Amino acid sequence: MSGTARIGVTGLAVMGRNLARNFARNGLTVAVHNRTASRTRALVDDFGDEGSFVACESAEEFVAALERPRRLMIMVKAGDATDAVIEEFAPLLEEGDIVIDGGNAHFADTRRREKALRERGIHFVGVGVSGGEEGALNGPSIMPGGSAASYEALGPLLERIAARAPDGTPCVTHVGPDGAGHFVKMVHNGIEYADMQLIAEAYHLLRAVAGYSPARIAETFRTWNTGRLDSYLIEITAEVLAHTDAATGEPFVDVVADRAEQKGTGRWTVQTALDLGVPVSGIAEAVFARSLSGHAELRESSRGLPGPGPAALDEEAAARFADRVEQALYASKIVSYTQGFHQVRAGSEEYGWEVDPGAVAAIWRAGCIIRAAFLDRIREAYDTRPGLPSLLTDKLFREEIAAAQDDWREVVATAARQGVPTPGFSAALAYYDALRADRLPAALTQGQRDFFGAHTYRRTDREGAFHTLWAGDRSEVAAD
Amino acid sequence: MSGTARIGVTGLAVMGRNLARNFARNGLTVAVHNRTASRTRALVDDFGDEGSFVACESAEEFVAALERPRRLMIMVKAGDATDAVIEEFAPLLEEGDIVIDGGNAHFADTRRREKALRERGIHFVGVGVSGGEEGALNGPSIMPGGSAASYEALGPLLERIAARAPDGTPCVTHVGPDGAGHFVKMVHNGIEYADMQLIAEAYHLLRAVAGYSPARIAETFRTWNTGRLDSYLIEITAEVLAHTDAATGEPFVDVVADRAEQKGTGRWTVQTALDLGVPVSGIAEAVFARSLSGHAELRESSRGLPGPGPAALDEEAAARFADRVEQALYASKIVSYTQGFHQVRAGSEEYGWEVDPGAVAAIWRAGCIIRAAFLDRIREAYDTRPGLPSLLTDKLFREEIAAAQDDWREVVATAARQGVPTPGFSAALAYYDALRADRLPAALTQGQRDFFGAHTYRRTDREGAFHTLWAGDRSEVAAD
Repeated sequence: MSGTARIGVTGLAVMGRNLARNFARNGLTVAVHNRTASRTRALVDDFGDEGSFVACESAEEFVAALERPRRLMIMVKAGDATDAVIEEFAPLLEEGDIVIDGGNAHFADTRRREKALRERGIHFVGVGVSGGEEGALNGPSIMPGGSAASYEALGPLLERIAARAPDGTPCVTHVGPDGAGHFVKMVHNGIEYADMQLIAEAYHLLRAVAGYSPARIAETFRTWNTGRLDSYLIEITAEVLAHTDAATGEPFVDVVADRAEQKGTGRWTVQTALDLGVPVSGIAEAVFARSLSGHAELRESSRGLPGPGPAALDEEAAARFADRVEQALYASKIVSYTQGFHQVRAGSEEYGWEVDPGAVAAIWRAGCIIRAAFLDRIREAYDTRPGLPSLLTDKLFREEIAAAQDDWREVVATAARQGVPTPGFSAALAYYDALRADRLPAALTQGQRDFFGAHTYRRTDREGAFHTLWAGDRSEVAAD
Repeated sequence: MSGTARIGVTGLAVMGRNLARNFARNGLTVAVHNRTASRTRALVDDFGDEGSFVACESAEEFVAALERPRRLMIMVKAGDATDAVIEEFAPLLEEGDIVIDGGNAHFADTRRREKALRERGIHFVGVGVSGGEEGALNGPSIMPGGSAASYEALGPLLERIAARAPDGTPCVTHVGPDGAGHFVKMVHNGIEYADMQLIAEAYHLLRAVAGYSPARIAETFRTWNTGRLDSYLIEITAEVLAHTDAATGEPFVDVVADRAEQKGTGRWTVQTALDLGVPVSGIAEAVFARSLSGHAELRESSRGLPGPGPAALDEEAAARFADRVEQALYASKIVSYTQGFHQVRAGSEEYGWEVDPGAVAAIWRAGCIIRAAFLDRIREAYDTRPGLPSLLTDKLFREEIAAAQDDWREVVATAARQGVPTPGFSAALAYYDALRADRLPAALTQGQRDFFGAHTYRRTDREGAFHTLWAGDRSEVAAD
């Protein structure tokens, strides 16, 4: 028994509904299904004229509506709900069918599910989908993991609905086996946190140090958006800052409570990076900045703590300072992406995914929250030199940081002196200076560890592990 | 069947052996057991004259040697080995007996084990033991979790072997139920990472900016150790820096490879803090600094990246700068402990442990790696005001930071300008400035989140969640 629908979507909340419409609008017959059938009917009632939908009431009907191999996309809440739906449908499927999870799953869950379904002869594809509701409808950035065979059957359909980069390529690629897609989506979100934190710091500096109004800062961001910082996040920052609150007549940003929320993928990114031994200090500071902002009691009690006030700058000095902030923001952004791509490479090595970082940069160029002209340059960097150990060592980025760094340093120094918190800018600069350092004080750390815990150390001049008899005559012994 | 040994230790590697000797030296009869019996015999052969040992070959013999309720301490490798030993002994025990895990367990494992044994009528006590081999023998800082009843039976014995604070109190307290002891030990280690990183940065600055030799820096640390920074870690830093490598005649710190290693508890601290929503940026930067130092390929390829050289300071300016570094180190240290104690409080609230932070500070005053005069002041701060929301708001610390902050800011600014990485100092300063900020740019972050994901925001002037119709007429709608 085999139907005619090219793909099926079960779970028709806003993301599922919009993806189904996107498939239909692009000429693909879509089977649609939802636990509560009224939602299925509503979709067809409201948007049936956009394309070819097959509304299905039961799970059996839904599975029967799909052509073979079946492509069945699950769009439900990540976690137990996903497992429940998989368990509902898996018994109805046949060998070679493809179950697709388009939710925000943790890549470790995706690895577990892929393995379990593989043993039952069913392909499982964990897909990272970025771009929110609007992207789901009009073209998201799509990050599918899973087997190469599943991508052969599924990829062409995803290419139809994906966003298109400025050069016309669809923003989807076969990221790698099992959890690779959701892993890369997770890192995308971590980078998004870092990008947003850096923008927040730039705004804070322009406000507190340059003395600019939100409207003036909106203008500044608009100007920046015409240059190398050209990106969706810079664009919407200008929109948000230019907006006036109708109720009070005040700048919108001044009536919004300054407690940032989060949904957890930034936290996952940092926790995973810690397991992989990848320093992602920029992403971590962004996550911490959000949680700090939400600790109302702590902040309330700390408000009176002493600190300097910002110095008043004249118009010319303010404009010069704003230019410096642009340099600092750009340099810090390069570091954020360097850390994020390091994590992608480390995950790929840990799990044997062979992720192509250039291809990842390419599919982030459109459709997703961090879409930016900048990503095309990252793609170029990896295309030129696929084994690039670090984005910082790419010729172009290296030159740009060389040109930006005096201003970057000056901005971090000014923020420290004037009491404006710039955890992201500062962490990025410290990362840059640590990576390029000839010698790090980690040697002292190893010496201390050997002193208090006999943890041994290595030497610069010969192989092997050594221990100094600190409590004895302080001679050195081999410890291998 | 009941024996006469007050306590038993199974697992006689160096930590177990030293703890057993510590019990025996303090007049307690100790049953000792090891999987390979030769180790048990060696202990009694080598140290039998230190006190009363009962050497046991079999598990049955070991259990029979213990007085009731039995106190059976497991000192094996954390993880599966611990579970295996528990499974070996639990069937031999009776209701009310106490199994003690003195290994470096993750507090979540301790919670699981405590629950499982509680259901079998057996007390399970996860004990954090700090102080390394030397502390185990001569007096560690001891952090036991578990039921109040188990502490009644076990506490007096632990008080006999614990380190003693300068005022004579033993460094052990009933931290709280189930995983509380191992949780607090984990945070202790996180703080230790942060302390070590701050010391490393201070050393790096004195070397690179002030131009001091390791021997001169050792002297500086010795002087600092006579003041408010008086602590074990400062003391051993001076020892390590003053040491000359016999093989080369060079300063020891210059022949040690600058790749710091780690055993995982710092990482656990940060991962747990992320779950609890506690910003522990200082600890995170310390963990990242260690992992960064170990990425040889990345560092090698980044070594030529452009950056400023440090400016040469004359003797007087160098001495003034060194004083500033002391201020920066001290202020940053206050922030590290503020973050660590925030995590202790958050863990306590999450798991209902009712941990007394003042008591925790008190038992860290001696025996453990972070022992310091400073901890007595933290104890005082919490004793004076048990509900203190943040250490930063304690009157004394607040005054000290007020006095230190100009120098702290100057040091961070100088490091940024001269290209010396100070991720710990910078993160601490950013945390301080963020906490005391009247308004944070988190408002902009919430505005962006509402723009791209309809995540809603709260307002400063009225209750409720709101959403702006960004793609529409930009009016505001209630979103509750």
